[in-house]
Amino acid sequence: MPEPREIEVFLLPTLAQPEQFAGRTVVVVDVLRATTTIIHALAAGAAEVAVCQEVDEAFRLARQLGDSAVLGGERAGGKISGFDLGNSPQEYTAASVGGRTVVFTTTNGTRAMDRCREARRVLIGAFVNLSAVCRELLGADRIAIVCAGTDGHVTREDALLAGAIVGELSRAGAWRRNDQAELVRDAWHAAAADLAADPLSRTLRASRGGRNLIGIGHENDIDLAAQIDKFDIVPQLDLATWRIRAS
Amino acid sequence: MPEPREIEVFLLPTLAQPEQFAGRTVVVVDVLRATTTIIHALAAGAAEVAVCQEVDEAFRLARQLGDSAVLGGERAGGKISGFDLGNSPQEYTAASVGGRTVVFTTTNGTRAMDRCREARRVLIGAFVNLSAVCRELLGADRIAIVCAGTDGHVTREDALLAGAIVGELSRAGAWRRNDQAELVRDAWHAAAADLAADPLSRTLRASRGGRNLIGIGHENDIDLAAQIDKFDIVPQLDLATWRIRAS
Repeated sequence: MPEPREIEVFLLPTLAQPEQFAGRTVVVVDVLRATTTIIHALAAGAAEVAVCQEVDEAFRLARQLGDSAVLGGERAGGKISGFDLGNSPQEYTAASVGGRTVVFTTTNGTRAMDRCREARRVLIGAFVNLSAVCRELLGADRIAIVCAGTDGHVTREDALLAGAIVGELSRAGAWRRNDQAELVRDAWHAAAADLAADPLSRTLRASRGGRNLIGIGHENDIDLAAQIDKFDIVPQLDLATWRIRAS
Repeated sequence: MPEPREIEVFLLPTLAQPEQFAGRTVVVVDVLRATTTIIHALAAGAAEVAVCQEVDEAFRLARQLGDSAVLGGERAGGKISGFDLGNSPQEYTAASVGGRTVVFTTTNGTRAMDRCREARRVLIGAFVNLSAVCRELLGADRIAIVCAGTDGHVTREDALLAGAIVGELSRAGAWRRNDQAELVRDAWHAAAADLAADPLSRTLRASRGGRNLIGIGHENDIDLAAQIDKFDIVPQLDLATWRIRAS
């Protein structure tokens, strides 16, 4: 009998060790907002997104790239002083990023990517590319979904997206799932049953990440993050160069 | 307007810092098996359960207590060499523990209790005393539920019990919930909807903790842990003496 395919979910990056991702296809999830924004940027025609852990590293790279660079990202949710763009998906348009390299650093999302440095492939997932990610994952045997969370706290929006992916893949075949994968799948099913009465954007508003965004005046970003399947692209992180490109 | 009451869930002890429990009523959950076994022991007439972190500490205390002590617990799921009892609920009977002090140490459960050392009250919860715990919690304003997990991994059985408690309390009034509380409540609702077709004992068998127990020959313990409301007691940990007594 063939080894069953496996899908694991980690509700925070720190709940897995980097070596657990060796040989795996990993989906990084930071619905509010890093992964949603990266997908928006590439869909708007950015050539690539260069991921930086630290602000000074981002400035250095942008200086090196010259006119082709756009500096984007956040600290404490706000635009970084001296950067061109913040972390709102709506800022990433053809006019602002088309054909250019977005040099990008955020608090939780880019750090979650660093945790995946031993993975075979790293994909970027959000509700805005849910079906595209699931289609891409159907070709993989060993999958991990890593939720970025917020400052070390589990966030419901990331867990629900992970659950939506696990649910979709489970409909398409048999998978071995870890306990966190079972939990988020069940949580997504329960939440999805209410989606007619209680749309996803309302659910996301009530999450930790959603409340944070409302607190800093970025409520509109929640509606953009809740647009399921708005885009048909699956960004992939090249671990050699730390550049993300649409595939 | 009065401050809303609050209930927080932590899927692992390490997801909270001890100071977060200050002023709170905390429920420690280790369904497979520490908290289930402690409830069985007290229901069988044990005078108290003395919680020890380490094996040598347990031996020292038992020696001091003399004939009134019964040594119980586990390492790697098995009985500890020189101990009287392991960590199976069925070993804790009127004959084995009635009127005596159970000196108890386990891998995950007793360590979860140590994390709660700054709490106002620490209660012991399992499916076997679900309704009794919920009744006790209705008198509290700020609640935390701490899941023990297994060796640093989130386990579904603990998450589902936490979800059952959150669901029950939420039916009885308005609570502010953290994202983990929302997730486990939804997961419990989805799992509970299947309970007729898929009894709790079968769900627990498939969890990480359940698979571990089956692997070491303790499958019967899963059925005992799945007996919802078998007992009407709520053990409480006295943080000054590290003794648990039925209340």
